[in-house]
Amino acid sequence: MHHASFMQAALDQARTGGAEGGVPISCVLVKNGRVVGAGHNRRVQNDSAILHGEMDALEATGRRPGAWYKDVILYTTLSPCAMCTGAILLYGVPHVVIGENASFMGEEAHLKSRGVTVEVLNDPECKALMACFIRDNAALWYEDIGAEPC
Amino acid sequence: MHHASFMQAALDQARTGGAEGGVPISCVLVKNGRVVGAGHNRRVQNDSAILHGEMDALEATGRRPGAWYKDVILYTTLSPCAMCTGAILLYGVPHVVIGENASFMGEEAHLKSRGVTVEVLNDPECKALMACFIRDNAALWYEDIGAEPC
Repeated sequence: MHHASFMQAALDQARTGGAEGGVPISCVLVKNGRVVGAGHNRRVQNDSAILHGEMDALEATGRRPGAWYKDVILYTTLSPCAMCTGAILLYGVPHVVIGENASFMGEEAHLKSRGVTVEVLNDPECKALMACFIRDNAALWYEDIGAEPC
Repeated sequence: MHHASFMQAALDQARTGGAEGGVPISCVLVKNGRVVGAGHNRRVQNDSAILHGEMDALEATGRRPGAWYKDVILYTTLSPCAMCTGAILLYGVPHVVIGENASFMGEEAHLKSRGVTVEVLNDPECKALMACFIRDNAALWYEDIGAEPC
């Protein structure tokens, strides 16, 4: 499988999250060419302040020794925020593939400065999903990124 | 109340976590001179890869609009790792008080570079708690910080 297939798996999860009434952002973790973890933002569903897509995927994947993460590729539909970036750095995930960063530019420069390989697919489906969500759910979106609506 | 009292509240929580068999690190959030949230590391208790002390405190405090965090002081018994640092930056917590950084030096420089006020109390009780824990639980400790035992 290639980047596009794994991003499609993340997109499917993101749409599931959206259908649940949540923030439609998702993440899959891939190791040795297989999906080993997946999650989506659960701010609404779990009334959570910390379960962004990447965090939910890391949590769903369970407790692992540090070495386990060192050949994981993390796919996320949206550029990772400061918190998710920090989690990626904590566990030393070496490679992050991002659906898009037009809706939100996360901490890609910080990831790169710490040696993480960052690829941005600029995926039109990821962009359309977020654009639609932000248009219709501005307050929820700003809460999710710790910001205030204009 | 002053720094010492809030750090004592965090230490009490950390000891609770230790007594539960967990990693003895804890955090309290203070707003307008009152504790508004508290948590402790739940890696063992909840089989969690993401519930460090700071994350648990943010989660326990619930969903809040971004503006809510902008006058919070976060007290943590140990220097915050990359993940917890990222969560602090995501929500714009402006002030972090750290019990100690001798056992583990977290991302204090990164916090400061983003304008966060960082104070380190160099507290002997915090240091003793972690030194004892790390001595007796090396594998668990290294797992918690995404590292490998030597």
